[in-house]
Amino acid sequence: MERAFIFDVFGTCVDWRNSVAREVRAVLPKVDALAFADAWRGEYQPAMERIRAGGRGYVPLDVLHLENLDRVLARFGMELEDRAGLNRAWEKLDPWPDVVSGLQVLRQKGLVATCSNGSIGMMARLARYGGLPWDALVGADTARDYKPKRDVYLRSAEVLGLGPAAVTMVAAHNDDLVAARAAGLRTAFVPRPTEHGEGQQSDLEPSEDWDLIAEDFIELAEKA
Amino acid sequence: MERAFIFDVFGTCVDWRNSVAREVRAVLPKVDALAFADAWRGEYQPAMERIRAGGRGYVPLDVLHLENLDRVLARFGMELEDRAGLNRAWEKLDPWPDVVSGLQVLRQKGLVATCSNGSIGMMARLARYGGLPWDALVGADTARDYKPKRDVYLRSAEVLGLGPAAVTMVAAHNDDLVAARAAGLRTAFVPRPTEHGEGQQSDLEPSEDWDLIAEDFIELAEKA
Repeated sequence: MERAFIFDVFGTCVDWRNSVAREVRAVLPKVDALAFADAWRGEYQPAMERIRAGGRGYVPLDVLHLENLDRVLARFGMELEDRAGLNRAWEKLDPWPDVVSGLQVLRQKGLVATCSNGSIGMMARLARYGGLPWDALVGADTARDYKPKRDVYLRSAEVLGLGPAAVTMVAAHNDDLVAARAAGLRTAFVPRPTEHGEGQQSDLEPSEDWDLIAEDFIELAEKA
Repeated sequence: MERAFIFDVFGTCVDWRNSVAREVRAVLPKVDALAFADAWRGEYQPAMERIRAGGRGYVPLDVLHLENLDRVLARFGMELEDRAGLNRAWEKLDPWPDVVSGLQVLRQKGLVATCSNGSIGMMARLARYGGLPWDALVGADTARDYKPKRDVYLRSAEVLGLGPAAVTMVAAHNDDLVAARAAGLRTAFVPRPTEHGEGQQSDLEPSEDWDLIAEDFIELAEKA
């Protein structure tokens, strides 16, 4: 049976925190860049939640990121001319070191695609930046809604031409896998214990008996 | 300014007629394989038209192809056990000889993506089969409607994060470019004079002053 592996991207495939901080540092040398990156990312769930709850029509994550940047700049008491330029930080995120080689092996076992809340354009530029060998970019833009809404997982399988049971959702976040499993997808957990920095408390361990559990994408590709 | 080039696939990038005929020949050795391929493709526009006109909700092209196959099998007086197998002929289409090298050059000038009525899954498998280096797969599945409906072109630009004027639609079919231009995209014509066989009468010449006109993708990449 043909299979596909679909991936959460921010945190699971790429180190958004250090990468965004690097871009912040370049244009706002006076701020605490990691704190700024954390604050920017902190606006992520509330912004999507309004759309998930139906209080706002779908807009791509690029738009939410830019709105959130305004809020965070104000909170840090900073002004910035080229806000659109800094917003592109989210297209320049370094993959964790095992990701590219793991995906190369995994793509011999099935299709590999994103299942991200990032837009298709953001994922395309991120793939170029990091050399990520995706077969397809699906997720929020193909469902016009945000994970963990059920339809995002189901539509991702559908546009790949596969039933949910033929598709494995790979994530470093247990809540993503809870939702994917509820939608009928298979699940794989790969921990990223420094996504939020050295003192990270969340998602250090799998919270359920996920179908696959691996230390990194190399082990994932072996076990899949 | 960042740019993208989005491509019609069937006919413009790949030789669907000889490729489908090859697959037909393998499982239905007694039929005229080229006539069968033409008849199958002949059902394409009417099937999409019902969806474009709102008489039927969106279903991906894979589903329409399978329904159309049933009709064509009946017309040719043939029965076939593995209809789903033959339907996968549309995932095994040979690129025209200039396509892969042209896209490789063009992708240094901007994003390259499909803008096809084929599904994302179909385009992903076709890309693997033919080695097509797409950055993204957009089109019918991202708009949930079929070209030449205006929204398919606009949504394709939108999910790539670009305005219509930053996106060039590339096609071997003048009607595709008429619709893309009306939606505000730039246009490029590359003739494929044997798409429909030796006696082809349609789309031998550009019907308007398209923004780019090139003999093949190599010339397109130079001029773009």
